[in-house]
Amino acid sequence: MPPELPHSPALSHPTFFGEIDPPQRLLMGPGPVNAHPRVLRAMSADLLGQFDPEMTGYMNEVMALYRPVFGTRNHWTFLVDGTARAGIEAALVSLVAPGDRVLVLNFGRFGLLLSEILGRIGATIETVDAPWGEVLTLDQIATAIERFGPKVVAAVHGDTSTTMAQPLDGLGALCRAAGALSYVDATATIGGMELAADRWDVDVVTGGLQKCMGGPSGSAPVTVSERAADAIFARRHVERGIVRDDIDDGYGPRILSNYFDLAMVMDYWSDKRLNHHTEATSMLYAARECARVALQEGLPARFARHAAAGRAMSAGVRALGLEVFGDDRYRMTNVTGVLIPAGIDGERVRRRMREDFEIEIGSAFGPLQGKIWRIGAMGYNAMKHKVLITLAALEAVLRAEGLACPSGAGVDAALAAWGQDVAPGSGA
Amino acid sequence: MPPELPHSPALSHPTFFGEIDPPQRLLMGPGPVNAHPRVLRAMSADLLGQFDPEMTGYMNEVMALYRPVFGTRNHWTFLVDGTARAGIEAALVSLVAPGDRVLVLNFGRFGLLLSEILGRIGATIETVDAPWGEVLTLDQIATAIERFGPKVVAAVHGDTSTTMAQPLDGLGALCRAAGALSYVDATATIGGMELAADRWDVDVVTGGLQKCMGGPSGSAPVTVSERAADAIFARRHVERGIVRDDIDDGYGPRILSNYFDLAMVMDYWSDKRLNHHTEATSMLYAARECARVALQEGLPARFARHAAAGRAMSAGVRALGLEVFGDDRYRMTNVTGVLIPAGIDGERVRRRMREDFEIEIGSAFGPLQGKIWRIGAMGYNAMKHKVLITLAALEAVLRAEGLACPSGAGVDAALAAWGQDVAPGSGA
Repeated sequence: MPPELPHSPALSHPTFFGEIDPPQRLLMGPGPVNAHPRVLRAMSADLLGQFDPEMTGYMNEVMALYRPVFGTRNHWTFLVDGTARAGIEAALVSLVAPGDRVLVLNFGRFGLLLSEILGRIGATIETVDAPWGEVLTLDQIATAIERFGPKVVAAVHGDTSTTMAQPLDGLGALCRAAGALSYVDATATIGGMELAADRWDVDVVTGGLQKCMGGPSGSAPVTVSERAADAIFARRHVERGIVRDDIDDGYGPRILSNYFDLAMVMDYWSDKRLNHHTEATSMLYAARECARVALQEGLPARFARHAAAGRAMSAGVRALGLEVFGDDRYRMTNVTGVLIPAGIDGERVRRRMREDFEIEIGSAFGPLQGKIWRIGAMGYNAMKHKVLITLAALEAVLRAEGLACPSGAGVDAALAAWGQDVAPGSGA
Repeated sequence: MPPELPHSPALSHPTFFGEIDPPQRLLMGPGPVNAHPRVLRAMSADLLGQFDPEMTGYMNEVMALYRPVFGTRNHWTFLVDGTARAGIEAALVSLVAPGDRVLVLNFGRFGLLLSEILGRIGATIETVDAPWGEVLTLDQIATAIERFGPKVVAAVHGDTSTTMAQPLDGLGALCRAAGALSYVDATATIGGMELAADRWDVDVVTGGLQKCMGGPSGSAPVTVSERAADAIFARRHVERGIVRDDIDDGYGPRILSNYFDLAMVMDYWSDKRLNHHTEATSMLYAARECARVALQEGLPARFARHAAAGRAMSAGVRALGLEVFGDDRYRMTNVTGVLIPAGIDGERVRRRMREDFEIEIGSAFGPLQGKIWRIGAMGYNAMKHKVLITLAALEAVLRAEGLACPSGAGVDAALAAWGQDVAPGSGA
């Protein structure tokens, strides 16, 4: 419990808790990671009224900037004001009504999260499961869709809990054939691995800023297909306090949440500018700058940089004699699971990394808790020198903890692997 | 519809849409307003891992800083990651289960919003209503509670749609006597008018940063009494992916939202640090700096400054020959409703204010749309010179629009009224 403060004017001390001054820490976990300095600076721009022409201009620019990031031409590409998890819930609560049948592709903690959110919505849920460390085949998905006849299919693209990325080519065609809508949680891959909403032919995809986009948590980019937008607008219900002649309610069941009602959020992001929440302006500035940084680098170059970082990190930890977790073919490029060697206390290693080197690496959840570390290299941190520094520090810490590591081997192997160009999809 | 962008590498143009560069606009509407420069700078600090000791230290400081802001000793004082509306929904969905009886104190658009959110939760709703521009008496509230027997009573403190502030002393005692919990939406008053969660004896109060706190939208401070926390923890349901031995599920009906499940959010803000969303770090830095600025100024001084600004603004517009909207006794200090004179086009006036003077004043909703302007002076903008500049500009614009205004009278009256000290509650 934090120290209790008296409720008195004595609180008004000029040095109360001091200025914000976080340590300069290198965040090499599964996210959040350090933000790009341009993104941090963009947030210090002054605010605008929510219906100022300049503000709505920035909103329209954000829509345009995130279309290529999602790999889509969807008009409805915008932000939900909350963390990545807010984007997930907004998508699901807007697509799914109580009693709707939803199939969840489940291969890690974030697949479980989809089921958890859907359970609260009152959906009838079926899952198709892969063990942690593997992904699903298209055949398994097809069989499950055929058996269950879902109205919506929900998937995670990259699940940081297992470091696995689910291939999604072909998912949309299966859903089309079955008359189902589809949802993809791309929180952990957006900006780091290719998102291809249009080629996948999926309906709603959501992301976040705090991983490969190199921004802070707190804004969730989302894209919605015309088909899904029609389904969502059919559930439109305008608040009584702001009813207007030019916006009619839909015939479908009302969406269970007001804040996450994407019909209202889309009306807010449309020329109608229907009043809903007050757009989180500083976070919108951040989201805009994240996308500008990504598009200026070029998405193919950015994906290649993440792939090089992932390749270098795995090569490095393997050269240190450690084992990499999960199926190599499907590993995410931006986070690497590393088995904690026998006799080593994983939390002590993390503490030493933080205390001696100011480097954060991640622990794990559920069945993997205490078994793997998760080492990320994403966004502004998917850089050669940061991978090398992390490996050098890890080697020193492991040696201090009594593990015999080949001296300098991690850094050398990473440096060699960084330059190797490997065909996309080979998962090296 | 914004211009369609090709989905191609040609997007990676280095000047894509240009840097963030909003006009330097004075936001004198009902919010958002300009943020304090210290708050904008705080957001540019680098990020931290969500369980880093420095990060959890900042979280604990935020808890301590917001207790005096809410006028409470409640341990459970923290942030919801979203706009003020997210805080409202989080409070209601966590307090109220489907079928629960809820009484809403309704005297404006934001009372209607409470009913709207509660309707989606499936609550059985009764309202006690005052016309827009008035507030409710304690007798009216007592009678409604007695008649309806609610489980929860929900109120707005200051409703910017009508510029009225509902007196809340005595509300808690009525609720206690009836065995009801209580909720107060203080979005528009937090940091500008006294909040007295403990003296009011209310259970949950939520706010936002973008009005009198002088910050950006996107973080919602909330305080929860022990009584309400018990009721909410009774509905705890931990996600399957992160189940732990030290946290048991509750017996109550599961909360309909995962993101807004305050049981999980409180477990995240507790020493348990149960993983939930990834805290929006930059917005937490902003919320922390908003509170530091407010407490360093001193809350009584801050409330007096808002009162002076509101007093000066009404004196000024009256001296210009305009009429102030609503019951003087209950007007909010931070936003003033001004009747649009006959023959004047309210939107043209707003456009001229923006285009010639870079000053934003607000329009209105519902029954007041086209009838009043809403002119705010709050947070960093509740300053003498900003009130005077706004009045000078308004006079010039009104004259250009053909209204005969006594020359210089607005500014003179405001200057005189700024210095007058009036007993609190007299509403002058």
